[in-house]
Amino acid sequence: MNPKSAIFSKYLSDEEIAKIVSDEEFVQKIFQFEIALAKEQSYLNMIPKKASDEIRTVLSELKITPLALAEGTVQNGIPVIPILELVKEKLSAEARKYLHFGATSQDAMDTALVLTLRDGLGILNERLVQLQENLSKLLEKYGDTPCMARTRAQLAVPIKFSNKIDAWLQPLQRQRQRMQEISGSILKVQLGGAAGDLAVYQDKGELLLNALASALQLSRAPSWHAQRDSLCEFTNWLAMISSILGKMGSDILVMGQSEINEVTENAEGGGKSSAMPHKNNPILSEALVALAKLNAGLQSQQLLGMIHGNERDATAWILEWDCIPQMLINTGTALNHALTITAKMKVNTANMKKNVEHFKNKE
Amino acid sequence: MNPKSAIFSKYLSDEEIAKIVSDEEFVQKIFQFEIALAKEQSYLNMIPKKASDEIRTVLSELKITPLALAEGTVQNGIPVIPILELVKEKLSAEARKYLHFGATSQDAMDTALVLTLRDGLGILNERLVQLQENLSKLLEKYGDTPCMARTRAQLAVPIKFSNKIDAWLQPLQRQRQRMQEISGSILKVQLGGAAGDLAVYQDKGELLLNALASALQLSRAPSWHAQRDSLCEFTNWLAMISSILGKMGSDILVMGQSEINEVTENAEGGGKSSAMPHKNNPILSEALVALAKLNAGLQSQQLLGMIHGNERDATAWILEWDCIPQMLINTGTALNHALTITAKMKVNTANMKKNVEHFKNKE
Amino acid sequence: MNPKSAIFSKYLSDEEIAKIVSDEEFVQKIFQFEIALAKEQSYLNMIPKKASDEIRTVLSELKITPLALAEGTVQNGIPVIPILELVKEKLSAEARKYLHFGATSQDAMDTALVLTLRDGLGILNERLVQLQENLSKLLEKYGDTPCMARTRAQLAVPIKFSNKIDAWLQPLQRQRQRMQEISGSILKVQLGGAAGDLAVYQDKGELLLNALASALQLSRAPSWHAQRDSLCEFTNWLAMISSILGKMGSDILVMGQSEINEVTENAEGGGKSSAMPHKNNPILSEALVALAKLNAGLQSQQLLGMIHGNERDATAWILEWDCIPQMLINTGTALNHALTITAKMKVNTANMKKNVEHFKNKE
Amino acid sequence: MNPKSAIFSKYLSDEEIAKIVSDEEFVQKIFQFEIALAKEQSYLNMIPKKASDEIRTVLSELKITPLALAEGTVQNGIPVIPILELVKEKLSAEARKYLHFGATSQDAMDTALVLTLRDGLGILNERLVQLQENLSKLLEKYGDTPCMARTRAQLAVPIKFSNKIDAWLQPLQRQRQRMQEISGSILKVQLGGAAGDLAVYQDKGELLLNALASALQLSRAPSWHAQRDSLCEFTNWLAMISSILGKMGSDILVMGQSEINEVTENAEGGGKSSAMPHKNNPILSEALVALAKLNAGLQSQQLLGMIHGNERDATAWILEWDCIPQMLINTGTALNHALTITAKMKVNTANMKKNVEHFKNKE
Repeated sequence: MNPKSAIFSKYLSDEEIAKIVSDEEFVQKIFQFEIALAKEQSYLNMIPKKASDEIRTVLSELKITPLALAEGTVQNGIPVIPILELVKEKLSAEARKYLHFGATSQDAMDTALVLTLRDGLGILNERLVQLQENLSKLLEKYGDTPCMARTRAQLAVPIKFSNKIDAWLQPLQRQRQRMQEISGSILKVQLGGAAGDLAVYQDKGELLLNALASALQLSRAPSWHAQRDSLCEFTNWLAMISSILGKMGSDILVMGQSEINEVTENAEGGGKSSAMPHKNNPILSEALVALAKLNAGLQSQQLLGMIHGNERDATAWILEWDCIPQMLINTGTALNHALTITAKMKVNTANMKKNVEHFKNKE
Repeated sequence: MNPKSAIFSKYLSDEEIAKIVSDEEFVQKIFQFEIALAKEQSYLNMIPKKASDEIRTVLSELKITPLALAEGTVQNGIPVIPILELVKEKLSAEARKYLHFGATSQDAMDTALVLTLRDGLGILNERLVQLQENLSKLLEKYGDTPCMARTRAQLAVPIKFSNKIDAWLQPLQRQRQRMQEISGSILKVQLGGAAGDLAVYQDKGELLLNALASALQLSRAPSWHAQRDSLCEFTNWLAMISSILGKMGSDILVMGQSEINEVTENAEGGGKSSAMPHKNNPILSEALVALAKLNAGLQSQQLLGMIHGNERDATAWILEWDCIPQMLINTGTALNHALTITAKMKVNTANMKKNVEHFKNKE
Repeated sequence: MNPKSAIFSKYLSDEEIAKIVSDEEFVQKIFQFEIALAKEQSYLNMIPKKASDEIRTVLSELKITPLALAEGTVQNGIPVIPILELVKEKLSAEARKYLHFGATSQDAMDTALVLTLRDGLGILNERLVQLQENLSKLLEKYGDTPCMARTRAQLAVPIKFSNKIDAWLQPLQRQRQRMQEISGSILKVQLGGAAGDLAVYQDKGELLLNALASALQLSRAPSWHAQRDSLCEFTNWLAMISSILGKMGSDILVMGQSEINEVTENAEGGGKSSAMPHKNNPILSEALVALAKLNAGLQSQQLLGMIHGNERDATAWILEWDCIPQMLINTGTALNHALTITAKMKVNTANMKKNVEHFKNKE
Repeated sequence: MNPKSAIFSKYLSDEEIAKIVSDEEFVQKIFQFEIALAKEQSYLNMIPKKASDEIRTVLSELKITPLALAEGTVQNGIPVIPILELVKEKLSAEARKYLHFGATSQDAMDTALVLTLRDGLGILNERLVQLQENLSKLLEKYGDTPCMARTRAQLAVPIKFSNKIDAWLQPLQRQRQRMQEISGSILKVQLGGAAGDLAVYQDKGELLLNALASALQLSRAPSWHAQRDSLCEFTNWLAMISSILGKMGSDILVMGQSEINEVTENAEGGGKSSAMPHKNNPILSEALVALAKLNAGLQSQQLLGMIHGNERDATAWILEWDCIPQMLINTGTALNHALTITAKMKVNTANMKKNVEHFKNKE
């Protein structure tokens, strides 16, 4: 679900991530699953090679209009059903029997989701690397500037600007490191069949699971249809990233207040006002704070989604469909804005020093 | 912001409400504000009638592509700036001076929002009326059927099916009544100028405010730029409606369990499974529960948005931009599904009675 | 549930409200329900007057140690069971039969809750009256002082201090007015019997319901065991009050920043620091913001609690047990702090004017 | 803060964890920090050994009544100030100078918190080990029993009971493993001085930090006063544990429905009803679901708390004070109930099989 308007597509959304979580890409990921499934099933002599080849050929070329799936989705509560129906129309009667062979809709949905997360994570990681670089440059260039610490909304004692930058950079480093450690176990294939036990594949279930994981370069895991902890771990990471950036935004808003003026979010001139021509509003920092709040709220939905009833439960599952794309977009947007800020921010070192002197004189 | 994909546009969204909260409609509502403002300002001799006429003429015909606003929105943190820029290109130098005269972006944004809420409320109200009718028919037709109460997940004592329907209908009646009582005070015009004090209009501020309210058929209120309680009262109502329907969905899921089989969500055949041809999944009831959870979470964001700093604060305001359209859509979707369910549901009175007999025999 | 520690009992709790939601008071409210129920049942010749008298006499004197209920509560998932067991030990065999006659635990629990809400509302209302008075005094004394508006974290234009105070006062007035309009319908008796249909009382059910409502001076309403909208309307009101005060706190934090210094939260000297003797921390304003966030989050739990399954569902009901006392306490605490702030705040009018002059000179 | 009442102290709280997060224990942890700080400072010749010895002696014996701290806490917005004041009364003039030497209140608060988390984690871990054992026993004893999968609230296909147990056990195994990997980096000492830069200790800051970490057997980390990611990672883990158990509770509620009767939560007889003597309510499973929802909501507060302004910000910090104890208690309570359930649950294998047969015959 692409959760944002065109008007806000740059301010409160992320065009690159939005594409990754788009309807079109979702359909492609479902195709990717079905192609790989058929291919591995053919290798394992579970379905004819001819059927597998036909499935690959047809799916490689088929374009589905997302809107064409809307009615089938509301009829069945899941878009995989109408996707498969449309695909089947293009397949020979023989190949049709072997499409999605033994799999359940959730196998396709969850694997598609994980492929999406991997793509998203790739983009976020690149931005994180760049952001750490930007922050390191700021650190190098301005880190030694004396400036005021502020605690509980009051001037505290002089510190260096590096202390402020470290409070943004260190948690980013820590959490990027953590994701590198754990992403392998989070990005795992889903294949369980109707009720998650691979029973439909009899003695070839485990072989197929391994082969599919390998083909899609995902981790192998027993079916996790109703075990959603890894997704929640991932989304909490997203929310932590946006919260770290929310804290950065919040700090820049304070340092950029007209009365303090230690930084200017955008040296080239930021947000204008329709009523006040003198304004240079720190609108990206504001967005950072808002996006952090939104992600914080969404994570509680993700955790609720872990209370996933029985073997499949859309009262929980739908929460993920709604939240994960939004959280990816919110985090991507926040990273984009953080990159812009750290590249364009004007650091008013003279004012920082002046504020320190002013404090010392008053003491 | 239209927060949903085309694929899910019928299952987890509401095409009618989605249109009301669309980019296009938002721009139209901004135009409606600007036209009315100019018109009333001209009546009050604050701007030339000619300028007002030109503004009306130009805005009545102008079409703006939402995507054309994306860059201006990320530059300024608010879409009103780029909208006005595009409008000004079409106006004479003279009229340009009187467009948005004395107003601030938030005046336009908030009034546009209230006009949107009014449209949304109109649709929701119609559906509520219809839903109450559907439920009343079920009550009349099946209300006297004996069935089992279930408390704390266990069979309790026999009641009538009317008791279950009442638990859905009575809160809807109560809350529809409440909204009729309070909607007037919630749907109120916004006009304050740069800092909300109408100072720019000098002694004509109050007159203009009254005239604008009257022209747009909204309540008159002192500027509420940083007073967001009425919006939160409205969105809590939305969340209460979706929660009432969530409870209905939850009850239908239980009564519709294969082992209980007292109702079938969709007598004509509901959700299918890609792996299990025998399934008739109660997919709309599931959505009702999920939508209720989503709205419950969003209301906490709305309340956070009330901590609106100083005279304008986008770290809070953006939360509304994100949440209100979603909450309207979630509520509209839930009402749609509730209408379908109450129209198509099969009430298996024989099973209800059988379950009561079975309970009595065991006792 | 008294949700706060002794250490934080004044800073993040409200001793007066905490008493109202205490275990002891809860037991008393249950007794109040049982006494009134027996009395009205005796008037209606449903139980012997002698039994009713004995119940009143025994319950008027009985003291129960809350901890004595802990084991019975975890055994039964509800404290009414062990309370009634302890009461029955004190009653004659005859009276025992007529205690809680025909009622279900939830009848007692919900009515006790409503009695608690009424007590809480009384206290909150008194504080709201006083707070409006305090704010009105500030308005009178300092309202005309010119000061700077700040929008999107930047200096905007000069306004008057009255505009800031109005942004705190007006929503409080509005919401206090609303609660007066709706409290009658929110404070309603609960009596339904095992499954909410009053069936146990046969043709006397309605009479008894009316009599009980009247005796307890509550509204009469059909059983709302699984209809929790009115509670959510009430708690959203609590959250709106704390959010309004959170906005006030947030504004005071900004105006009180060392660099701005337009107000001092506590003229007599506020929060100290263990490391910085010069600090005068605006610690009550900080608490206002935090309490608003906490209540905002809790309201989403309350809304989730409306998805109350079947005729009784503790997976939803427990949410209320946890949240309502906390929300009452958070709101009461916020009102207390707001009263202290508005009584003790130093308004530095000279600085307000200076900041305006400074802005004008720069323009 | 001990967030629960005596009445609910066993059903919705955890006496063992409640003790760990009690006021008394908090004061002891503050003392533990101050003793270790003085001792290491004395080793490093930063303060006289005599002062350090006196501090240890006095603090080892001092008992502070929590209520005695309430007034100082509301005066200062933090309990460390009144604690230190009470301690200083007991110290010689000389030792008084070296108590809390160079530290800030947050150093003591955060380190005390981490010591609390370590204690809490110890208890939770023990219960997790036991729970895995209980589940493994159920697996061994009943895992092969055929039973019905249920997807989207409908009967799906036959599986084995092991599939259900695995959906509870596998995520617990996974998340326990994860916590073992990451707890070291989460449990880290806090020492930064007034503004977090250790400047007060000049060239001995790093040495002291290392020594203190080592003395308290915590990880060493640069000051994280305003970097709250690790706490959020920890609390998300708590919420994931309670959500996993919430899913288990939810499944048991379904399998335990009167109409399905595949398990009985408590073979010895569970929750009773005041109106229905035949009831055996699965009250612990209900609590599991409710506790999961509560923790899910609290995690969003924790994430909000990461938007921690400047160098110290109680509008964010207070959220942690409120949420972390509750989340620990909720998780501990959930584990306790899960242990009881897995020990006492009756698995009605005959009914499981009967339900499978019934399904097969209908097909």
